[in-house]
Amino acid sequence: MTEKKILLIVCDGLSDRPVKQFEMRTPLQAARKPAMDALARHGMSGTMDVIGPGIIPGSDTAHLALLGYDPYKVYTGRGPIEAAGAGIALARGDVAFRCNFATVDKSLNVTDRRAGRIKSGTADLAKAITGMKIEGVEVVFKEGSEHRAVLVLKGEGLDHRISDVDPHHEGKMLEARPLVPEAKKTAMVVNEFVKRSHDVLQKHPINVERAKAKLPRANIILPRGGGSVRDLEPLHQRYGLSCAAVAGVTLVKGICKLVGMEVLDVPGATGGLDTDYKAKAEAALRLLQSHDFVFVNIKAGDIASHDGDFRMKVQVVENIDMMLSLILKDIHEDVVIALTCDHSTPVSIKEHSADPVPFTISGGGTRVDGIKEFDEISAASGALGRIRGMDLMPTMLGMADRAKKFGS
Amino acid sequence: MTEKKILLIVCDGLSDRPVKQFEMRTPLQAARKPAMDALARHGMSGTMDVIGPGIIPGSDTAHLALLGYDPYKVYTGRGPIEAAGAGIALARGDVAFRCNFATVDKSLNVTDRRAGRIKSGTADLAKAITGMKIEGVEVVFKEGSEHRAVLVLKGEGLDHRISDVDPHHEGKMLEARPLVPEAKKTAMVVNEFVKRSHDVLQKHPINVERAKAKLPRANIILPRGGGSVRDLEPLHQRYGLSCAAVAGVTLVKGICKLVGMEVLDVPGATGGLDTDYKAKAEAALRLLQSHDFVFVNIKAGDIASHDGDFRMKVQVVENIDMMLSLILKDIHEDVVIALTCDHSTPVSIKEHSADPVPFTISGGGTRVDGIKEFDEISAASGALGRIRGMDLMPTMLGMADRAKKFGS
Repeated sequence: MTEKKILLIVCDGLSDRPVKQFEMRTPLQAARKPAMDALARHGMSGTMDVIGPGIIPGSDTAHLALLGYDPYKVYTGRGPIEAAGAGIALARGDVAFRCNFATVDKSLNVTDRRAGRIKSGTADLAKAITGMKIEGVEVVFKEGSEHRAVLVLKGEGLDHRISDVDPHHEGKMLEARPLVPEAKKTAMVVNEFVKRSHDVLQKHPINVERAKAKLPRANIILPRGGGSVRDLEPLHQRYGLSCAAVAGVTLVKGICKLVGMEVLDVPGATGGLDTDYKAKAEAALRLLQSHDFVFVNIKAGDIASHDGDFRMKVQVVENIDMMLSLILKDIHEDVVIALTCDHSTPVSIKEHSADPVPFTISGGGTRVDGIKEFDEISAASGALGRIRGMDLMPTMLGMADRAKKFGS
Repeated sequence: MTEKKILLIVCDGLSDRPVKQFEMRTPLQAARKPAMDALARHGMSGTMDVIGPGIIPGSDTAHLALLGYDPYKVYTGRGPIEAAGAGIALARGDVAFRCNFATVDKSLNVTDRRAGRIKSGTADLAKAITGMKIEGVEVVFKEGSEHRAVLVLKGEGLDHRISDVDPHHEGKMLEARPLVPEAKKTAMVVNEFVKRSHDVLQKHPINVERAKAKLPRANIILPRGGGSVRDLEPLHQRYGLSCAAVAGVTLVKGICKLVGMEVLDVPGATGGLDTDYKAKAEAALRLLQSHDFVFVNIKAGDIASHDGDFRMKVQVVENIDMMLSLILKDIHEDVVIALTCDHSTPVSIKEHSADPVPFTISGGGTRVDGIKEFDEISAASGALGRIRGMDLMPTMLGMADRAKKFGS
């Protein structure tokens, strides 16, 4: 028995519902996608409740499940995942928060929760406030895209269970309150950080410039969504695979790092509509030379859906298909290839939905079920039936002759 | 994203097996049912193990599962589960016990815990002791198979946490003791019931006959395994829906009330074969004006099956189809409609069976899977695959854009 390599391609939000403007076809049904259909034709299909029936997956929880981790056990708040995505190495005991750069007036009323969706300068602002020590706790602060940022506290006796400083709408700023007695110190440190960073940010040259240009100052940090990370057994250890990922979008990168994957920075693979599909294909093929398990995420479908742009979504399907055809042209025939989505994002509702996603797995001498197309309805007649996201990884490992035996 | 309303129609026991007299078609396959088939044609189908594979659902446990409650968690202790199995409708606050008919000597020593595995006569014995009133508590007692029976207490201030009367081996009989102070009254009522029923049973003609035949008298009841119905989070609270039900049959009404639903009394909706289908259709449509979730149960199919009347069962299918056509004529196109059964009741066996039931869900912009008929076999090829009863409610909520998101 030869162990095969595995390529998992996750098309973010590509799964959809019937679209009126396409005579009630879904974008996957409306698009021309010979490579995806070839995959379906040569393997087995099915549909998947990524978290469970009737549960709308986030991209973070979905990717955890697709990689075989129970998100209900791993995930405590969004903070840690954002932190991991921003490249901050989290250790057990650390607590993390999502933050906004925001604008407050002199009475600490939040006048703009996003500081005018500030586009530049946040790296400098973050540099000015990261590295503080408060009560022996080390503060790590890092900017994200636009007004977004991450706060990580490292030290003894921390607990993420505090209330948000972010009021979630314009108005009076809140103080962090401990939600359990163990979180008293954390609430105190967070409040002190917010206070001290306000003093620094208010008079920072970048904000002085912004004020001159009549732009709102990014003069306050609003932490929210505190969480901590369960110790995760790294993917390579858990399954005995060398693993690598190609992903453009920060959140997905974060998940990959959290499970101990090597994440490749592909120039041009932006996580946007303009992502370089050819570069992604080449990166995937290159990584398959040196790794047992390669994971590729393409974000563009989700973006088209959030914009409600069904024509763009069909275009994205066809772009991904082109990327896939480049991969199929050069891939070793023994590689097990799985194609799926992390969740549905129907263009009709512009949001994630609970609809099951299609998946197809081929290669490695697997069975062939006669399904000829890759879409939400065709896949539902496939031989792999309806599974849960956490079943995908074991299923792929099984087909790659890498599953574990239980019994004699 | 607009939240849609939901109509759930449960055809009690309509699901069946092939019937010889119909050339091996099921009643659903044999009947003319254009409205049901239209639902299937416009939505997605699947099959459902209402409790789990190979478990025969009762109407009560089935309805709990269909409404999203785990029947194994709702009923604490074995007593309530046995009571449910014996067809005793349980309400919140009731306590239930498994019992044995047993044999005691004059000093109340248990000489046979199963009264010689008594085979007949227990129905008459049960009739002689059920219906007592003790301290304002109503006693419901029902025989099971052989020496087995169920005791249910209905009244104020009851608590199931008492010790067993059953010594679990031959020897000195025990007195029920309260395990918590709140259970003092329950222990007292149980002990009094055991005493009084002993007096009745000892001289009951059936036992006099048994003594003559040198068989041990079934002269004592030994309760054990007390439990009660859990306080349930009401449906409207759990899912953020205003809910109403139309049901004729007492057991189903009981479950609806247990989960906090408003149950409409529809004149003519009897829960029998003569139920007024038109009145039910009108009630469902009326309730959909004012509620987010409307549940309709039609009992007639189950009754025809228990009578083994396959012609009547086909007639019931056609009657329900007529009701459905009245609903479909006037319903808002955005309502998500689910049609299913709570269990199979094959006319060939005249009892509930563990066969999966068909279901179909349509409306609200959902996907369409190409299934053209509503029956046990057609539904099994549907895009929704094979689910469990507890997955139905989340699935409907997902299609109605009322599901909750987990993650970012």
